[in-house]
Amino acid sequence: MTIYDMAREHAVIASSGAIIGWDQETYLPPAAAEFRARQLAWLSARGHELATSDAWRKALEDAESADPGDDPKHTANLRELRRRFDRATKLPTELVARASSASSLAKHAWAEARKNSDFAAFAPHLRTLLDLAREKADLWGYPNEPYDALLDAYERNTSTAAVAALFDSLQGELTAIARQAVEASAARNPSLPPGPYPVAAQQRLNAEIAAAIGFDFNAGRIDTTTHPFCTTLGPRDVRLTTRYDESDFTSSLFGVLHEAGHGLYEQGLPAADFGLPSGGSVSLGIHESQSRLWENHIGRSDAFWHHWYPAACREFPQLAGFPLEKFLGYLRRSAFSEIRVEADESTYDLHIILRFGLERRMLNGTLAVEDVPDAWNEGFAALFGFTPRDDRHGCLQDIHWSMGGLGYFATYSLGNLNAAQLHAAARRDPAIAAASDRADYAPLLAWLRENVHAHGATLDPADLITRATGSAPDPQPYLAHLRQRAGY
Amino acid sequence: MTIYDMAREHAVIASSGAIIGWDQETYLPPAAAEFRARQLAWLSARGHELATSDAWRKALEDAESADPGDDPKHTANLRELRRRFDRATKLPTELVARASSASSLAKHAWAEARKNSDFAAFAPHLRTLLDLAREKADLWGYPNEPYDALLDAYERNTSTAAVAALFDSLQGELTAIARQAVEASAARNPSLPPGPYPVAAQQRLNAEIAAAIGFDFNAGRIDTTTHPFCTTLGPRDVRLTTRYDESDFTSSLFGVLHEAGHGLYEQGLPAADFGLPSGGSVSLGIHESQSRLWENHIGRSDAFWHHWYPAACREFPQLAGFPLEKFLGYLRRSAFSEIRVEADESTYDLHIILRFGLERRMLNGTLAVEDVPDAWNEGFAALFGFTPRDDRHGCLQDIHWSMGGLGYFATYSLGNLNAAQLHAAARRDPAIAAASDRADYAPLLAWLRENVHAHGATLDPADLITRATGSAPDPQPYLAHLRQRAGY
Repeated sequence: MTIYDMAREHAVIASSGAIIGWDQETYLPPAAAEFRARQLAWLSARGHELATSDAWRKALEDAESADPGDDPKHTANLRELRRRFDRATKLPTELVARASSASSLAKHAWAEARKNSDFAAFAPHLRTLLDLAREKADLWGYPNEPYDALLDAYERNTSTAAVAALFDSLQGELTAIARQAVEASAARNPSLPPGPYPVAAQQRLNAEIAAAIGFDFNAGRIDTTTHPFCTTLGPRDVRLTTRYDESDFTSSLFGVLHEAGHGLYEQGLPAADFGLPSGGSVSLGIHESQSRLWENHIGRSDAFWHHWYPAACREFPQLAGFPLEKFLGYLRRSAFSEIRVEADESTYDLHIILRFGLERRMLNGTLAVEDVPDAWNEGFAALFGFTPRDDRHGCLQDIHWSMGGLGYFATYSLGNLNAAQLHAAARRDPAIAAASDRADYAPLLAWLRENVHAHGATLDPADLITRATGSAPDPQPYLAHLRQRAGY
Repeated sequence: MTIYDMAREHAVIASSGAIIGWDQETYLPPAAAEFRARQLAWLSARGHELATSDAWRKALEDAESADPGDDPKHTANLRELRRRFDRATKLPTELVARASSASSLAKHAWAEARKNSDFAAFAPHLRTLLDLAREKADLWGYPNEPYDALLDAYERNTSTAAVAALFDSLQGELTAIARQAVEASAARNPSLPPGPYPVAAQQRLNAEIAAAIGFDFNAGRIDTTTHPFCTTLGPRDVRLTTRYDESDFTSSLFGVLHEAGHGLYEQGLPAADFGLPSGGSVSLGIHESQSRLWENHIGRSDAFWHHWYPAACREFPQLAGFPLEKFLGYLRRSAFSEIRVEADESTYDLHIILRFGLERRMLNGTLAVEDVPDAWNEGFAALFGFTPRDDRHGCLQDIHWSMGGLGYFATYSLGNLNAAQLHAAARRDPAIAAASDRADYAPLLAWLRENVHAHGATLDPADLITRATGSAPDPQPYLAHLRQRAGY
């Protein structure tokens, strides 16, 4: 078997696990949970076994030494397969098992600690997870600081120092924009006519809109879950999930727009290369750019709702007589929230900047775990102008640390920045801008297919942005977008 | 690893495949079918690999020689594991692959041939499948005729000659009962008030009834599919499926009663033994007895509908004023159909007797493939009194042969016979009969749990029936039931 055959077999295993995981989050009967964990563990072990095997190493080495270097895609595939293999094999099995068990314990402890707003109960777990993260980072190696090695899992070849410099340079401007947005929003007193907005009507509208922006229901579905996600079960099988709130139909709709953005990326990847880096997504920061582009740049635009508001009014009679202007004001409302997942466009990145800074200091040993709540509250107050009421609404709110997901948060903001830069670049084509302005997004999607999706993981995220937009990653389009939203 | 550990691991693999297969039949987007086949094939290959491995053989031998023989369940488990291992390893991989590819081709050819009512186009495939079946039977070995070895796959330790003798002895009586039932039904002129019977209301009623007869929705679900089935995705995860006809709510309801009968069996198997013979079902003839018991003996009974008709009338206003007597007449209507899957209780077994006889003659070489259509039509006319209009409505109607499922059909009638014998035996307990007569089926289910489900596959089907009912398999309870239905 060649390394490509093996990578494709690995994709069969991993995507089988994804089917089983999807069912777990959508349709699993309660009593089935325990055995389901064993089914997932078995498949995951087989995938890991294959991807770290001597046969894999040998096949990869053979392919590397035989590469004539005349096919950039092939060379990029081998480079990325090598990077993944080295990352996977640098960690001893014993450490992987220890980390998995620690994060399993930590997740339970975190859920309990959050419920009781009791950081002290979570602190020992966080210490263990930080030790494990540093242990992994040491084995993976890093150019400057341990955070580099962790970030690399989500956003390859991205330097922590560069992200820190970016966030430092943005913090003042983002804070000013957020204040302006929150003030302007309060003056508009945003509201939505009261529900119920029946689930069946929401499902019809969501499906109609998802199909209209290009999501292919012949190769995908939308189902219901508690925590919405997008997962890929095969080269032509992309599953979105959402949840329904009968008092506010925009909640499920914007969930679908977000997940459909991820789904359009997955459906746009080269299906023939499924399992190879050239057939997979490149990074979380690029993935998130696709979801944010459709959710925020398209889904909250005037043009989109000039087109779709009549359909919404048809499904939801209570919207009749509710002016489109007021509806748009509701969609673009802004407020300072203690909770990241409730944050709007204009305040979101402040949450990320806070977390990134704290994570980095924890990993570098300049912030002790017991000081996290104080540091969180001080940092939060500096950005938002008030202190969270308790740790449950502060440093205990997110699941990421308990899962060992240190290094993850930064990619949310990178996604926001990438989305704006890509969207602005696409709109420089007058045909794309004109079509988008009449809510025809086929040309925009075609541009994304060609400039983002088609590359798979053959380019580093920063290179992909540079090639697609003609300039290196640049926060200006995002700031311009936020300023416009805030009514600057 | 002990043989039990290996059997349990095999169950993890097989049930993972079942999840993926379930999704394929319920929610799979059309374009995903091709890759889905690869995911299923990979899991199936891993399961086969494990269950035919040297490690498995060694572990089984170790367990056999260490068995002190003081635990009948353990000894029965080893005996059945041995039987399965020998069956699995007697076929060379090359033959398994050849059979799988032949039946894959045959399924396509059959679908095409049926559409065009063109038996000649299917005939060469049927010849190949018969050759393969005989080749397998020779490798498996058999006491008297090749059919024994095939039947053994579905109904272990059952002799073809005994089934043939049983069917011969029943044919006259069954034919007479069927004529009487069809005549009586025609005189009643059965009908149902016109639809629509909305799907949502059908789903509510079906779920209420399934829960009331004991199906545990905490460990199972009902979803929608084209060809209803019941599948087990784990020890506490039993999935039923059905399909909806808005012109007749009884179609989905009786589908659910049938599949819930299978599901109650699966939910009643010892969960702690999942993966061992003692935690699995024993045979198709016993499985089908459970579905038929709930579908026909309970679901078409007076007591059931005295209790449930008001609920049906609540869900479906068009039933108001439609007398219960007429409704029962509709549920028990009988007619001669060319098509097996449309047959009612009173005519069903005639279809099976026809197929069993033809299959047996084909395998024994006394019926040539090119003569099958004539033999079918003659046999059909002898049983039903008329000839099918064409082969599409005759010998091409069923998928079983094209899947290589020779030896399968007989188990449907064995299921009917077992259902009647088990139900009659249970009702000999006055408490069970009294409860059932007020539509309280908890005592009946408890009896089935104890006398059927709890045994798993530790007893041969015939022994299970004998132990449960106090007599060897006996067609009289079934004939009595059919006579009562036919109004004899």
